[in-house]
Amino acid sequence: MEKKSTRTTDPSSFLQSVTLSEKDGHSSTQSSHRLLAFSDSLISIIATVMILPIAHTKIQQDQELQKSLQQLLATKISVYLVTFLIVTVAWAAHIRLFQVIERIDDVLALLNLACMMLITFLPYTFSLMASFPENPLGILLFCGCAIVIGLIQAGIVLYGFSQPYLLIDHIQISENQNYYKYQILKVILRVPVFCFLAGIFAFIFFPLAYILLALVIFYPYLSQTLKWCCNKALGQQEEHNETMLLYTYHPKEPLSKERVEAFSDGVYAIVATLLILDICEDNVPEPSEVKERFNNSLIEALHDFGPEYLAYFGSFVTVGLLWFVHHSLFLYITKTTRFMGLLNTFSLAFIGGLPLAYQLTHEFEEKSHNELEAIQISCVIIFFAGIFQMAIWVTALFNERETLHPYVRYRGKEHAFMFAKLSIYPCVSLSTFFLTCILSEFSTPIFHLMEIIVPFAFLALRILVRIALALLKLVFCPSKPIHNSVEEDETRLPFNDVLWYIIDL
Amino acid sequence: MEKKSTRTTDPSSFLQSVTLSEKDGHSSTQSSHRLLAFSDSLISIIATVMILPIAHTKIQQDQELQKSLQQLLATKISVYLVTFLIVTVAWAAHIRLFQVIERIDDVLALLNLACMMLITFLPYTFSLMASFPENPLGILLFCGCAIVIGLIQAGIVLYGFSQPYLLIDHIQISENQNYYKYQILKVILRVPVFCFLAGIFAFIFFPLAYILLALVIFYPYLSQTLKWCCNKALGQQEEHNETMLLYTYHPKEPLSKERVEAFSDGVYAIVATLLILDICEDNVPEPSEVKERFNNSLIEALHDFGPEYLAYFGSFVTVGLLWFVHHSLFLYITKTTRFMGLLNTFSLAFIGGLPLAYQLTHEFEEKSHNELEAIQISCVIIFFAGIFQMAIWVTALFNERETLHPYVRYRGKEHAFMFAKLSIYPCVSLSTFFLTCILSEFSTPIFHLMEIIVPFAFLALRILVRIALALLKLVFCPSKPIHNSVEEDETRLPFNDVLWYIIDL
Repeated sequence: MEKKSTRTTDPSSFLQSVTLSEKDGHSSTQSSHRLLAFSDSLISIIATVMILPIAHTKIQQDQELQKSLQQLLATKISVYLVTFLIVTVAWAAHIRLFQVIERIDDVLALLNLACMMLITFLPYTFSLMASFPENPLGILLFCGCAIVIGLIQAGIVLYGFSQPYLLIDHIQISENQNYYKYQILKVILRVPVFCFLAGIFAFIFFPLAYILLALVIFYPYLSQTLKWCCNKALGQQEEHNETMLLYTYHPKEPLSKERVEAFSDGVYAIVATLLILDICEDNVPEPSEVKERFNNSLIEALHDFGPEYLAYFGSFVTVGLLWFVHHSLFLYITKTTRFMGLLNTFSLAFIGGLPLAYQLTHEFEEKSHNELEAIQISCVIIFFAGIFQMAIWVTALFNERETLHPYVRYRGKEHAFMFAKLSIYPCVSLSTFFLTCILSEFSTPIFHLMEIIVPFAFLALRILVRIALALLKLVFCPSKPIHNSVEEDETRLPFNDVLWYIIDL
Repeated sequence: MEKKSTRTTDPSSFLQSVTLSEKDGHSSTQSSHRLLAFSDSLISIIATVMILPIAHTKIQQDQELQKSLQQLLATKISVYLVTFLIVTVAWAAHIRLFQVIERIDDVLALLNLACMMLITFLPYTFSLMASFPENPLGILLFCGCAIVIGLIQAGIVLYGFSQPYLLIDHIQISENQNYYKYQILKVILRVPVFCFLAGIFAFIFFPLAYILLALVIFYPYLSQTLKWCCNKALGQQEEHNETMLLYTYHPKEPLSKERVEAFSDGVYAIVATLLILDICEDNVPEPSEVKERFNNSLIEALHDFGPEYLAYFGSFVTVGLLWFVHHSLFLYITKTTRFMGLLNTFSLAFIGGLPLAYQLTHEFEEKSHNELEAIQISCVIIFFAGIFQMAIWVTALFNERETLHPYVRYRGKEHAFMFAKLSIYPCVSLSTFFLTCILSEFSTPIFHLMEIIVPFAFLALRILVRIALALLKLVFCPSKPIHNSVEEDETRLPFNDVLWYIIDL
């Protein structure tokens, strides 16, 4: 009966959405796709949330920006960065967990929700730690959350292995299921154990507690670096074990590309809309005020908010275009390694700071020293956000056979174009920065000019690059030879790129 | 060369992510999947944003809640609902547009970003309209945005048809491309024309402008209802044209299920985290205050925020579980019609109000009349959010062959279980509502008890339903006959469901 009646439904969308493991008769088993997408949105929102208290810190007009920045830097910015880092660590653990568990059922979905709830609480514990660094309560709360998260994740693993049809086929058919289980549990329970120790030391000697927490974040990178150094020193070959790779911290360990994209999308989306949230809440004038101060003229009242609108559009355009670059980049990336994920996290952390920077640009008097500094900070943030995107690409190029689509590999059709796309923001922001240093009086017009030009640069880029490539082809190599190996050209790569790039612009 | 070197990449993930139309040689063409997911996140955030000004309205303790609620209802809630509705209308138009345009290139991606930027600005124009209903500026701004959005969408259509490889295959091979183009343009340009007229009337006679704007939202439903009435009156058969269905407003018109899910996920994610945003920003005590007021005891200072934490956990759990129900429901829905999309929008609009309701529950003194009303409002909101989810399922059941997976159809394996899952929240909220009416003194404990019980009800549900079904099978029908047609049982469906449900609980 069931076979017969599916005939009327659209088979492709049906297959995509419901991956019920009919062969086993487990009707409650579900594809984990949507659960993971939802978790990604939640985690990305939480990761960027801590920028809000920074953005809402009121800077007095008479204060020098640098002083208040130092204040900010001391607590809030560090809270933001640490939260971003630790939330992405939790997210990476979540990815690895659901690389082993491929299908879910209701119990796993509910356990995952509980886990998410605790993760969303982590930023608050960090705020407490930053405000009361010597009070053990913040650490205790954080450790409590981390321990419970670890236990829930261990529960998810145990449940998954008790119902083997939930696991990836690879482990499902393996004879060493128990070995895998203990290996995974060992990695997952490491964090709770560290946190438990940190919780104890919070009472005895709290600096040690902080060191232990830092160790939780950096342990994977430290241990990997140590291992790499040992291997190099002893001249050993690195071993590769495809399955265990999922539960080590090897820089080339594959992360789920789809989830990296979903997480990045969430961050970009929330960052792009952060300013409109503020505008909708704060920049609607009171009717009484309009009557008294502006002689009932709404346009005049809104005129005061002009800089806010400009900041909004500037920040939306910049975030939107950086998303566009990210989107183009990941379109051609076929495998995301752990190291690329780390670079992506850094890029996203800077992007999270963008709305703040743009908000700063309109908070001060025109042509004041503060305004100039705010504009320069914006340039620096854009530069780093862009340069880390570029770094992802360069990292991918080093191993291009595994990680890149042929189109964008060296000498591929889109290689020059992708390079040009990725360099627009770093170049423009860097030149704006230096221009504002020299022509500090015209910093605001220069900055706004940049905002207007960049979108058109993206629109015209393809045409420009095409013309340039056609010319280049005509002049240098009328009949391009076909290369099967690219290694021989590796050394000439930078020069050629620069050449192409100069011609493009 | 290219063919050869793809061998080293993972073919499955590669195919999923890069759908380059290699046959045409258009190397810049991309699958639109990620662009649409990003647009969905942006639109869902914008749709729910307007709840923030409501949530941040401070209610004085001495005021009666009802009075301030009337104030709120007058402007902010209506702004929230209208924004939600108009943003979902814009989103539905976006869906339809990208049901015709299947692949994108850089120009389309940039045009889409411009479109998104204007959509994110719409809530602000609504705030202006609500605060200054008699000032034409709000209407003019809104109409301006809507006209530009319409023109950009028309540009997207024209560009898409000028590069036919971007269109769905169906239209690509059709000979009537021009007919399709003008038909689609006609539908898209209807909104700008209406808005242009509304903009003109804003100066002459502004109530007419509002009527025209309302018409933009309700036109599809009105025209469809009129058409349906005409058809019924004249006894005509409705015509179905598979392609044109995409550009009519037929209630059975298919919406992209994937995008409905992505949009809902975005709303759920932002709503679930709304309260933690506030907590992170407002509920970290000042170090100086802790020293003075609380004798340096952080725990005592945090004790004051207890109700806030409770409200956060309550709202997260409720939103999370409603997402879980939604997830289970859409897992078994194979096709989303326009009408189901509308019901989903209503459900989401109520869910957007949840954090506000939960925040209200802790704003008043214990056992005050205000607190009781806040709790009852929460119950009503949960009830409607749940009942609209149920309505989606009932609507799907009416056409179950096309819209539902066999498992959840009437007499399917999961039918009773899905019904039980969907009824938990409506039933629990309704009974809490009546219990608080009768036992008004214990309203808070009852409410908190409900919050704690519901997650366990979800965990135990499957076991309970299984036991009940097994018993039922043993008692009533030891050998279940196989039905090929379900029409004959349609009339008995409600009774059976109720019977099953009673036994389940």
